[in-house]
Amino acid sequence: MTRIEIPGDSLFGYDNLPYGVFSTARTSPRVGVRVADTVVDLTVVDTVFATASLNPFMAQGHARWVEVREQILDLIAGEIPDAAVHPVDEVTMHMPFEVADYVDFYASEHHASNLGRLFRPGSEPLMPNWKHLPVGYHGRAGTVVPSGTDIVRPTGQRKGEDVPTFGESRRLDIEAEVGFVVGTPSPLGTSVGVDDFDERVFGLVLLNDWSARDIQAWEYVPLGPFLGKSFATSISPWVVPLLALEAARV
Amino acid sequence: MTRIEIPGDSLFGYDNLPYGVFSTARTSPRVGVRVADTVVDLTVVDTVFATASLNPFMAQGHARWVEVREQILDLIAGEIPDAAVHPVDEVTMHMPFEVADYVDFYASEHHASNLGRLFRPGSEPLMPNWKHLPVGYHGRAGTVVPSGTDIVRPTGQRKGEDVPTFGESRRLDIEAEVGFVVGTPSPLGTSVGVDDFDERVFGLVLLNDWSARDIQAWEYVPLGPFLGKSFATSISPWVVPLLALEAARV
Repeated sequence: MTRIEIPGDSLFGYDNLPYGVFSTARTSPRVGVRVADTVVDLTVVDTVFATASLNPFMAQGHARWVEVREQILDLIAGEIPDAAVHPVDEVTMHMPFEVADYVDFYASEHHASNLGRLFRPGSEPLMPNWKHLPVGYHGRAGTVVPSGTDIVRPTGQRKGEDVPTFGESRRLDIEAEVGFVVGTPSPLGTSVGVDDFDERVFGLVLLNDWSARDIQAWEYVPLGPFLGKSFATSISPWVVPLLALEAARV
Repeated sequence: MTRIEIPGDSLFGYDNLPYGVFSTARTSPRVGVRVADTVVDLTVVDTVFATASLNPFMAQGHARWVEVREQILDLIAGEIPDAAVHPVDEVTMHMPFEVADYVDFYASEHHASNLGRLFRPGSEPLMPNWKHLPVGYHGRAGTVVPSGTDIVRPTGQRKGEDVPTFGESRRLDIEAEVGFVVGTPSPLGTSVGVDDFDERVFGLVLLNDWSARDIQAWEYVPLGPFLGKSFATSISPWVVPLLALEAARV
């Protein structure tokens, strides 16, 4: 049996407890929780974690998310079977969930204004709708990959002097974003209210919204970013549950 | 045993043979082929069809698509077990496949110009990129439904006199489109050439790209159509294989 020591300065203490999908040389991909410098195999808590995806657990809903977090706190406060505890540098991390749809919102006024000046010089940097609703677009769900995956520089058309030119992007850009992971579905044709946020959103990931600005600048009007964005989006392999943020509420 | 008679004027003769997912009062959802006014249960050809989705069959690739079409032609030219033949008005049709990602291309110059005049009066109806590349945007994969599914009129913001107003769309619109169903994946970071079209594209559906024009007109700049489009997209439950079009080649 193992008792996990959590150093006082660890970013992975009792308040955080992010979920991820990991494998080892001897263990097939499954869901684990990060505690200090270890990954604890959550199949000791529930068989719902014996699969390479958080989706089945997320589908169980908010009450179960609360319950399992309590079970994990109990587990790691005591002794854990040795076979369920892995040093974090001995595991391989994978995509933590299947992405059904992926929406990117233009949520920062500073960023939206900056991009407005970049792509529409000489006009108002913010469109009139920006102050009234969350402007967003759908990304390509199939290109969301876990951090660490090599990204291939995309090729595409760039605006040319007379005719467009084709080739590798010369203006590859990065954008740090926070991704919200929706855990439970809502029926088609119904609205989800702001008050339902806690019931629907399971957790958060860090996200790199890779952009090929030269390709984007040419192709994105009037239907929005497409090839200039949809070649890859990297996310952190660890999903911080929304419940973890309660401890940080001010 | 049943022998299917195909009237000379049937749209569902030997050249067409579309695939769909059907169920009856006594049969769980599975893949069938439409022949004249009947649906033939394809589990008599292969167990890959004993599921409520074309995805496993499509994943088998082009060579297998050709082979199975030959097997179906042999089957329906002869006698078929009675239990595998259902009158089309006694079956319920379902979504024929799972949608991983959904892209809508702005492929008709007439339509693109028309929409340009509608949404950007006083400026050039076509953007300069339109003649050089296929302009497209990602839709919401989770809202693609089979024809016949009731569509709920969406609510959202509309541009107002001083401030936006919120309510049901007053300008619900329809657009008839042809949908291409990609059957086999390509590795992330690779390009698919035009010559690979036959190997990747399994078939075609008819598609209704529902649009709430008042919502779209307000929210779609600069990131493209989002809430104004992503509430529903209807497709025909029958997928016409690309191979069926060979007979119509001129």
